[in-house]
Amino acid sequence: MGGHLQMNKKIKVAVIGVTGYSGSVLLDFLAKHSAVSVEYICSSSNTGKCVFSVNPSLIGLKDKIPEFLSSPDELPVDEEKLDCVFTCTPNGVSTQIAERFQKTKIKLIDLSADFRLKESSVFEEWYPGLKHPNKDLMKDVAYGLTEWNRQEIKNCKILANPGCYPTASALAILPLLRNKLVTKDNIIIDAKSGTTGAGRKLADNMLFSEVAESFSAYAVEKHRHTPEIEQSLNLFGNTQTVLKFTPHLLPVKRGILSTIYLKPKKTDITENELFDCLKSQYKDEKFVKIFKNPPNLKDVNYSNRCHIAVRYDQRTQTVILFSAIDNLIKGAAGQAMQNFNSMFNFDESLGLY
Amino acid sequence: MGGHLQMNKKIKVAVIGVTGYSGSVLLDFLAKHSAVSVEYICSSSNTGKCVFSVNPSLIGLKDKIPEFLSSPDELPVDEEKLDCVFTCTPNGVSTQIAERFQKTKIKLIDLSADFRLKESSVFEEWYPGLKHPNKDLMKDVAYGLTEWNRQEIKNCKILANPGCYPTASALAILPLLRNKLVTKDNIIIDAKSGTTGAGRKLADNMLFSEVAESFSAYAVEKHRHTPEIEQSLNLFGNTQTVLKFTPHLLPVKRGILSTIYLKPKKTDITENELFDCLKSQYKDEKFVKIFKNPPNLKDVNYSNRCHIAVRYDQRTQTVILFSAIDNLIKGAAGQAMQNFNSMFNFDESLGLY
Amino acid sequence: MGGHLQMNKKIKVAVIGVTGYSGSVLLDFLAKHSAVSVEYICSSSNTGKCVFSVNPSLIGLKDKIPEFLSSPDELPVDEEKLDCVFTCTPNGVSTQIAERFQKTKIKLIDLSADFRLKESSVFEEWYPGLKHPNKDLMKDVAYGLTEWNRQEIKNCKILANPGCYPTASALAILPLLRNKLVTKDNIIIDAKSGTTGAGRKLADNMLFSEVAESFSAYAVEKHRHTPEIEQSLNLFGNTQTVLKFTPHLLPVKRGILSTIYLKPKKTDITENELFDCLKSQYKDEKFVKIFKNPPNLKDVNYSNRCHIAVRYDQRTQTVILFSAIDNLIKGAAGQAMQNFNSMFNFDESLGLY
Amino acid sequence: MGGHLQMNKKIKVAVIGVTGYSGSVLLDFLAKHSAVSVEYICSSSNTGKCVFSVNPSLIGLKDKIPEFLSSPDELPVDEEKLDCVFTCTPNGVSTQIAERFQKTKIKLIDLSADFRLKESSVFEEWYPGLKHPNKDLMKDVAYGLTEWNRQEIKNCKILANPGCYPTASALAILPLLRNKLVTKDNIIIDAKSGTTGAGRKLADNMLFSEVAESFSAYAVEKHRHTPEIEQSLNLFGNTQTVLKFTPHLLPVKRGILSTIYLKPKKTDITENELFDCLKSQYKDEKFVKIFKNPPNLKDVNYSNRCHIAVRYDQRTQTVILFSAIDNLIKGAAGQAMQNFNSMFNFDESLGLY
Repeated sequence: MGGHLQMNKKIKVAVIGVTGYSGSVLLDFLAKHSAVSVEYICSSSNTGKCVFSVNPSLIGLKDKIPEFLSSPDELPVDEEKLDCVFTCTPNGVSTQIAERFQKTKIKLIDLSADFRLKESSVFEEWYPGLKHPNKDLMKDVAYGLTEWNRQEIKNCKILANPGCYPTASALAILPLLRNKLVTKDNIIIDAKSGTTGAGRKLADNMLFSEVAESFSAYAVEKHRHTPEIEQSLNLFGNTQTVLKFTPHLLPVKRGILSTIYLKPKKTDITENELFDCLKSQYKDEKFVKIFKNPPNLKDVNYSNRCHIAVRYDQRTQTVILFSAIDNLIKGAAGQAMQNFNSMFNFDESLGLY
Repeated sequence: MGGHLQMNKKIKVAVIGVTGYSGSVLLDFLAKHSAVSVEYICSSSNTGKCVFSVNPSLIGLKDKIPEFLSSPDELPVDEEKLDCVFTCTPNGVSTQIAERFQKTKIKLIDLSADFRLKESSVFEEWYPGLKHPNKDLMKDVAYGLTEWNRQEIKNCKILANPGCYPTASALAILPLLRNKLVTKDNIIIDAKSGTTGAGRKLADNMLFSEVAESFSAYAVEKHRHTPEIEQSLNLFGNTQTVLKFTPHLLPVKRGILSTIYLKPKKTDITENELFDCLKSQYKDEKFVKIFKNPPNLKDVNYSNRCHIAVRYDQRTQTVILFSAIDNLIKGAAGQAMQNFNSMFNFDESLGLY
Repeated sequence: MGGHLQMNKKIKVAVIGVTGYSGSVLLDFLAKHSAVSVEYICSSSNTGKCVFSVNPSLIGLKDKIPEFLSSPDELPVDEEKLDCVFTCTPNGVSTQIAERFQKTKIKLIDLSADFRLKESSVFEEWYPGLKHPNKDLMKDVAYGLTEWNRQEIKNCKILANPGCYPTASALAILPLLRNKLVTKDNIIIDAKSGTTGAGRKLADNMLFSEVAESFSAYAVEKHRHTPEIEQSLNLFGNTQTVLKFTPHLLPVKRGILSTIYLKPKKTDITENELFDCLKSQYKDEKFVKIFKNPPNLKDVNYSNRCHIAVRYDQRTQTVILFSAIDNLIKGAAGQAMQNFNSMFNFDESLGLY
Repeated sequence: MGGHLQMNKKIKVAVIGVTGYSGSVLLDFLAKHSAVSVEYICSSSNTGKCVFSVNPSLIGLKDKIPEFLSSPDELPVDEEKLDCVFTCTPNGVSTQIAERFQKTKIKLIDLSADFRLKESSVFEEWYPGLKHPNKDLMKDVAYGLTEWNRQEIKNCKILANPGCYPTASALAILPLLRNKLVTKDNIIIDAKSGTTGAGRKLADNMLFSEVAESFSAYAVEKHRHTPEIEQSLNLFGNTQTVLKFTPHLLPVKRGILSTIYLKPKKTDITENELFDCLKSQYKDEKFVKIFKNPPNLKDVNYSNRCHIAVRYDQRTQTVILFSAIDNLIKGAAGQAMQNFNSMFNFDESLGLY
C-alpha cells in the first residue's frame, strides 16, 4: 500500500447502499477523507436519481462525490477503476457482490451481516433463508472488531464489519473475560438501541407515532447479534460461552447502551481491579474510553468512541458493565473507516473527524 | 363505608403537593370521582396562587376544586372538615403531617417514601438524613401494593403508596416466586423510567437538551427502591432475597419498563407454565394484564394498567419478565385511587376512567 | 331523546376504522359512555382479528366492546340494530357508507373529509380524484364545529366532523372576525401538528428516524384544510375570505398549535378589547378557554379543550392568535362525541372524561 | 496575518464559556483546526475542574486542549500568549472582557449579544439593565453575518457574531429585499427553535417533562432578536423596516426553522423569479443552499449550512420563505469559525468539517 501513498494516488472506492442511514454517514467520512476518491455511489432503490435530492443533508459533499446514483450492477470489475467496495446492503446482497469481485484484488468492506459468522451452520440457523458464503470467500475474511483483530484486518481481502450491538458488548466484556475476572457463565446483556439501528425500512412499528413516548423489547431470544457476540467472546476472549441478549428499542435516533451483568471469578474482587483492567486494556486506544460514571448516549453520539464504565455490587456480587456507542459510527461507518485505514496502511483515525 | 353512601355524603379530601406531576394527576382523578369532594389543595411553593395559572392543564376541573392553593399548615385538624389527606410531598414531609393528624380518624394516603419501609434501620440506611416514623405511626400503616395486600389496606389508617419501580417489579415477580417457579437468587431488574419519575425538580441532568436523544443508567447500586422491592418479595412472596436493581432514565415523559432476569427452579420448565402462573394469578384483576408479546409503554401510558409478559430462554435457562406501567398512574396516583377506594369501601376502580 | 333515557335503552353504535389513531380514541370514549352500547367495531385491514391483539392499549375496554373486528360490509342496515355509525375512514369511504344507510334513520358521524365542504366544485378541486357526495346526501349534513353550529348539529342526519386544523383555527379567528375587530384580508395561519394528524399510514417521512429531532413545513399552498377553514369563516363569520395556511410537522405525537396573524380594523385597538371579545364569546363554554399566556400543547393534550390566547403588537399593528388543541380529541374524537351528544339529546360533555 | 502562515505559527486562542452548548461545539471546531492552538479554556462556574469530567463528550479532544478549566480572570493580557479570545458568555460579560483587552491587538469574537446592536438606545431598550459598550469599543466592531459583510469582518478587531434567529432570517430575506422583489412592510417571521438555543440555564420550562410532547410560543412581542433582524435588513438590505417576529420552542435539541411571510412588490411575480434571485445571490456560497422543497432541520443539523426555499402563493399573493440552520453551528459556533478564518486570512471553511 505504501505504494499508494508514495505515488500520491487516491484510493478509489464505491459505496453500495448510500441512501441508508449507515451508508450516508459512511459516504460523508469517505468524501472528506484526504486519501480517498469516491468513484461510484450506488442505490438499488434510487438508481439514476440525484443523490442531493434523495438526501439533502449530503449537499455539503457536492464536488466531492458523484452527483447521480448508479446501480450496483454497473460497477466495473476492474482494478484500475476501483480499489475498494463498501456494501451497506440488506443481508444476502454482499455475498453476491463479493463473488463478482472475487478474482480481482479489489477489497470489500461489508457493513451487512453476510460475512460475520465463521460457522455456516450457525449462520444458517440464525439467518434462515440465507446462504453462508462459500469457503473460498470465507478464507479471505477478517472480522473487523478493530481494537481486537488488527493483524488479520490489515491483511484481509474481505472485511466483515461488526454489528452494532456486538461492538458495544464485546469491547466491554472482553478485557474482563480474557483476564479471568468474570466467569463465562451467566452473562446477561440488556441492550437498548436507537431507531436508525433498524435501517430506513418501512414498518408500522417504526413510525414516529408508535415509537415516541414508548419503549419495549423486541426479537427476544432470537436476535441475530446473539451468536455474533458469542463468537467474539470466543475468538478474542478464548472462551466458549452461551449468553442472554435482550434488545430494546429506544425513542432516540442514534446510539446503543448495553447494560451487562456478569459474575466475578472471586467474590472479593474490587471495583478498582475491574476498572484498572479495562483502563489498562484500552490505555492507548483513541476510540475506547473508560469512565467512572455510567456513560450517556449524548456523550458518544456523532463520535467514533465507545464509552465504558464498570461497577461491582458487593450486596449481590454482580459486576455491571455499561457500554455506549453511536450505532451508525463506532457501530457501523466509523469502525468501517478504522478498518479501511488499516487495510490501506493509513493512520487508523484518518478521516474520522 | 356503606354509611358514607347511605348518607350521600362525599368523602372530604385534601391533597398536599398538587403542583407536582403525580399530584396533578391525582387531583384530576379525585376531582372527577363521584364520591369525593376536594376541599383543600396545598402547595408549599405556590401558596396563595390560582391553581389554573400555575397549571393550565387543570382548567377543566374548574368548579370542582378550590381555585387557590393553600399552605399545608392551614389544613384543619378536624374530622368534620376532612376524611382523608393525600401527600405528594418530598420525602420527610408526610411523617410530620401524619403526626399532626395522629389523634384524629382522618386517614392519610402518602405517595412519598416515608412509610414504605417497615424496618427503621433499613429506612435510615437507604434514606440517610431522614428519620423513620415512630412506631405508633408505623403500626397503623399498610403497604399499598393493591393486588397483594387488600385486607390490610382496607383497614389501615395510613397508606404507604408503593414506589413506581417497586410496583412494576413486584407485580411481575411475585406470582413466579410465590409459586416457586423461580429461585430467589440471581434476580436482576434492569429498569427504565420516564422523566416524570424524578418529579419536577430543577436539575441540570433533567433539562430537555440533556435528556432528549440520550439515555443512561443512574443511581447504580444505591437506588432507594431496591430495599422496597426486596421487602415486597419478602412480605408477599415469603422469600428473603437480595436483588440487583439498575434504573435508567428514558427520554420519555411517562412510563416504566422493567426487564427482569430470573433463574428457574427446574430447568425443564416451559414458557407456558410461566405464562399460566401469571395468567391465573391475575385472572380477575382489572388492572394487571398478561400478554404473550413484550409490552410497550404506549399501551399502558395514561392508564392504570400493568402489562406483563414472560419468556423462557432454553439456551441460557433464563426466565425473562417484562413489566410496564405508567409511573404516574399505576406507579403513583392511580394505585393511590385504588387504595383510597378500598379504604373507603368503594369499588376499587371507581373514578379510574 | 328523553325517550332514550326513559326507556333506558342505550344508543347502539358501530365504529368503522377503529385501529387508526382517532378511531381508537373514539372507541375509548364510546365504550365508557354511560348511554352507549358499542355493537360493532370494524376495520378493513384487520377484519377477523382480536382488537386487543391489534391494539393492546384497548384491553381496558374488555367486556365493553366486541372482541373481534368485523368488516364494514357486515354492518346491518337495520334500525333495530344500529342508531349511529361513526366513520374514521380514509377520504372517499364514508360517502359509500352513507349511501348504504341513506334510507334508514341511522345517523352517520363522519370523521373523514367527505362531507365537510359544501361546494362540490371546491371539494373536487382540493380532493382531486374524489367525488363529492350527491345533493340528496349533502342536504342532511351539518358541519360539526360544535360551538358555532349547535342548532344544525342537533337535527342533522349526517355529521361532518371538522378537520383538526380547521377546528383550532376557526375557533380562534371567528369571534374577532364576526365582531369586526380584524379585517378579513391578510389572514396568515402558521400551523404545527403532531404526527398522529397524518394517521397510521406507512410513509418514509413518518418514520421515527426521520421525524425526531427534525421539523419542516409540508403541503405548502395545497393543504386540503385551507378551503375548509375559509368555509368556516364564511359560514359562521359571515365573511368571504382567502387566507394563507402553512402546516408544519412537529416531532410530537399529539397536538396542534396554530399561530395566526391578522390585521386590526382600527389600529388603536388594545389587547384587552381583543381578549374581552374572545372571553365573552366563550364564557359559557366548557371546552374553549381563553388565556393571557400563549398556550402549550401539554396543557391541552389528552383533553377536549381548545386553549386560545391573543396579543396585539403595537409596533407592527399585528394581532396574533394562538390556538392549541389535541388533534385526536378536540380535533377529532372528542368533538365527534360532543356532536354525538347533541344529536342524541345528551349533555354535550357526557362521556368526555 | 500572512505572517502567521509563513512562520507556521499557530493562532493562539482562548475560549470563555466552554461548558455551554455553543461553547463546547466551538471548542471542538477550534481543537481540530489545523492552524489553531487552544491555549486556555475558561468557565466561571467550573473553574479548576477537569473539562472531560464536566463534559465527557469532549474526551476526543484530549491532548489538543488544556485539561483544566481556568477562570476568565486568569487570562493573560499579553499578545505573545494570545491572538484571539472567543466569548460564549451571558450578555454583559464580553463588554468587560473587551475592555481588558482594548489596548492590545488581541482580537475578540463574541458569541453573546453585547456588540450586535449599533445603536445604544436600541440596545438599552431591548436589553434593559445592560449597558451598551462605549463608542471606542463599538468603532472596532464588525457584525459577523459572514456572507453579507466580508470586508468589514476581515478588518475588525471585535467580531459580533450574529444571533441564531437573525442569521436564519436575514440570510433568507436579504436577497429578495435588496433586489426589490418584496416590500419592506408586512414581514412576518414565525420562527421555531430547539432547546439548546436557550443555553444550559436551569429553568422549569426547559425540563424534559415540560418540553417533550409540547410546543408553544414564547417572548411574544419582546424577543431581543427582533431589532437585530431589523438592523440586518437595514445594513445589508438598505431598507428601514419594522417586522413581526414570533419565536416558538420546539421539542428538539438543535435547529431553527423560520417560516417567513412577505408581500411581493408586483403581484404577477413567479416562483421562479424568486428562486432564481436566491440561487444567484448564493451561487458561490459553500454554506447557503437553495432548494425547491421546504428544508428539514435534520438536513442542516450538525452542519454549518443554511437551507432556504421560497414559494409564491398566487391565491393570497404571499411570498413564503423557509430557512433552516443548526442554531449551534451556522447560528453560533460555525459562523464564528467562518468569521475567525476571515479575520486571520484563512480559507473561510477551514476546520469546518
